[in-house]
Amino acid sequence: MTHPTPTLPDPAPAAFTPLEFGVGARITLAVMSDRYADIILDAIRSTDTAGLTVDTGVVSTFVGGAEADILRYLTDLIGAAARSGHHVTATVHFSRGCPGEVVCALPGGAGPLASEIPAATPVGIIAAGEWALYPLDDGGRPGTQPDHMRDIYAAIDFAKANGSFVASEHFVTRLQGDLATVLQTAAAGWILVGQSVQHVTSHLTLSINSPSAR
Amino acid sequence: MTHPTPTLPDPAPAAFTPLEFGVGARITLAVMSDRYADIILDAIRSTDTAGLTVDTGVVSTFVGGAEADILRYLTDLIGAAARSGHHVTATVHFSRGCPGEVVCALPGGAGPLASEIPAATPVGIIAAGEWALYPLDDGGRPGTQPDHMRDIYAAIDFAKANGSFVASEHFVTRLQGDLATVLQTAAAGWILVGQSVQHVTSHLTLSINSPSAR
Repeated sequence: MTHPTPTLPDPAPAAFTPLEFGVGARITLAVMSDRYADIILDAIRSTDTAGLTVDTGVVSTFVGGAEADILRYLTDLIGAAARSGHHVTATVHFSRGCPGEVVCALPGGAGPLASEIPAATPVGIIAAGEWALYPLDDGGRPGTQPDHMRDIYAAIDFAKANGSFVASEHFVTRLQGDLATVLQTAAAGWILVGQSVQHVTSHLTLSINSPSAR
Repeated sequence: MTHPTPTLPDPAPAAFTPLEFGVGARITLAVMSDRYADIILDAIRSTDTAGLTVDTGVVSTFVGGAEADILRYLTDLIGAAARSGHHVTATVHFSRGCPGEVVCALPGGAGPLASEIPAATPVGIIAAGEWALYPLDDGGRPGTQPDHMRDIYAAIDFAKANGSFVASEHFVTRLQGDLATVLQTAAAGWILVGQSVQHVTSHLTLSINSPSAR
């Protein structure tokens, strides 16, 4: 699947690795079955972590690394759990440009880190999603022209072009489509805004195999 | 439970109702049991919606209204599901100052809408949380002095004062404590930042009865 890439300013060559730049995601997976522990553990065991730093905590699993590796990991992990046939929800939190928490380990002014939008290969699992996208820091390099609304509209246009856009709701954009495409949409918006803004986060809540969606 | 309230600028008298100002939350509840549908439906039926606009969708339920009503609703709903004894996760997304999606129905410049931090009555359920807080719009009234970092530090101080702060992690603050206190912490940060910033969102992922936390 190919998509028109909106024209955006040319960022400087990357001075950071994705991990140094804080490119990563947190994922919380829920399987609504008495067998949830086995299903989640099997999904984790079957998912390739090549190229990624993975750290599982009580609430979520952190994955850090390049965008394409993160997207592949999330698609495979959530897909494996969804193939159980049970109702699955997943909470995904993408971040870039601010490793750390309150105080960024990478201070503002480092500028954006450009990246390509990874391709999505459909996996045959339909997912419903709610998506929010946050440009958080305009402390770009001199000469860059951050423009939140332009980049957010580019992200929405991407969702419309790949067919995953459903509707605008309070606080979120409703997405629907193949799991890989819905995840790609949220990652694409995050990457597109990240071409001109250093610190960008994106939150996606997914529902799969819901009886209320049938 | 009482807490010191940080000194923050005096906002103008409210010109909007909470609903007009876009004060609301989205909640996605997952119960890891074969009986999840009954448990979630029972939790919804037993939870008082007084004062709130409630709209249940495929991915989440939207609740709009005053902060204290929203917090009571979330505590009761999640608490009812957790009392099943099963492993429960909940994804909570607070927003204020921007009803709508890409384009705020309430344009920037409306200024902040001040609100009190609701009290928390412990419910006897321990929750682990991961929390992110986003000040998104400084388009305040002339004369206000927005200061993101001051307000975010006030929010973290609140979490330390009520005992729910655990640690700073990549992208999030780890919280732990009584469900009511953890929800209060995320709402308090959102309300504190909202005293000087119009558009503020806060995302909280909760894990309750997790076997890996025992």
